[in-house]
Amino acid sequence: MQNTLTKTLPVKEAIETRHSIRKYEPTMPKEDLLEILRLGSLAPTAFNAQPARFVVIENPELKEKVKAAAYGQTQITSAPYTIVVYSDMEDVMATVEETSHPLYGDEGKTRQRQTFEGSFGGLSVEQRAVWANTQANIVLGFLMLSARGLGYDTVPMLGFNPAQVKELLGLPEHVQIAALLPVGKAAEEGKSAHRHTVERITRFA
Amino acid sequence: MQNTLTKTLPVKEAIETRHSIRKYEPTMPKEDLLEILRLGSLAPTAFNAQPARFVVIENPELKEKVKAAAYGQTQITSAPYTIVVYSDMEDVMATVEETSHPLYGDEGKTRQRQTFEGSFGGLSVEQRAVWANTQANIVLGFLMLSARGLGYDTVPMLGFNPAQVKELLGLPEHVQIAALLPVGKAAEEGKSAHRHTVERITRFA
Repeated sequence: MQNTLTKTLPVKEAIETRHSIRKYEPTMPKEDLLEILRLGSLAPTAFNAQPARFVVIENPELKEKVKAAAYGQTQITSAPYTIVVYSDMEDVMATVEETSHPLYGDEGKTRQRQTFEGSFGGLSVEQRAVWANTQANIVLGFLMLSARGLGYDTVPMLGFNPAQVKELLGLPEHVQIAALLPVGKAAEEGKSAHRHTVERITRFA
Repeated sequence: MQNTLTKTLPVKEAIETRHSIRKYEPTMPKEDLLEILRLGSLAPTAFNAQPARFVVIENPELKEKVKAAAYGQTQITSAPYTIVVYSDMEDVMATVEETSHPLYGDEGKTRQRQTFEGSFGGLSVEQRAVWANTQANIVLGFLMLSARGLGYDTVPMLGFNPAQVKELLGLPEHVQIAALLPVGKAAEEGKSAHRHTVERITRFA
């Protein structure tokens, strides 16, 4: 299937045409993948914490292994790339000065350190990992729309064994995987999902 | 400040021009707000659970009270609307048949019920609330980009007293608030945040 979208899909159209895709054309330009990652990295996070991290799976043998850890779901081997979107709040805590705007100099770095020690220092590793995972899910949404905006498709996957995937990728136990996100040019039509109406889920006050 | 954007901002530009805005013009058309909510409601969720719910604060007196519960942050009273983005997984559990595609009929509803009892029935209310909150954060990202795509701005807020906000809005204790999201036409310039490079947060494997 030839994808005929231009590279300037408006947000509204990107959202309306985004469907989960499980069959992909075998390749996509790596520069487009990097642009998707760059746009995803611009998602906001509270305190500018930026706990989201990516492993991009491109090696065919590794894809097979991760597919097995995802109960054999073939979209992982079909897609040219699978982005493992995870959060590493311990990396944030260890290097939090990096997230302070250079404009604020050393004072900014000190303040950022104090903010994080005050807000997260008293939490357990698991508690702050739960928080970081919420922030990685914002990034996940940005990645899906960035891909669609550039004419690509994705499918967010939660059906996998996290411990096995972490082991395959050499990720530490404390990280949380928000989703596996295969990405590429669609080779099938997507289906519209059934959604609540706005009225069903909204109240004015 | 006059916002001169057309109503067709591409995803890339929406992401690149999205900054946290804390001063707003006093009004925006309600139809645009409803369109932002509609686009947000199209965000994907695992199992099509759709736990995200919205309370839109428009009443000036209520805005003042919620501002007080958010430590006096003035963006809540400045913005024409503040969307309280929360998740209610207990509502999902009680009414999960609604999330089955009508195409699949009664059998689909039964299957959806079984899926949810199997995946979430054994979890505590708090555990499944944590999960639902991750899904509401995907919606939060979609809302911010939908607003930007239509020429509006937002600021995701986590700095508030959740118990107080729930009480003011009559929300049950078990729900989790992903963020307060003031929305409107910007009346100030936004600032670019300092972000990690893609190289810093990405590994290929």
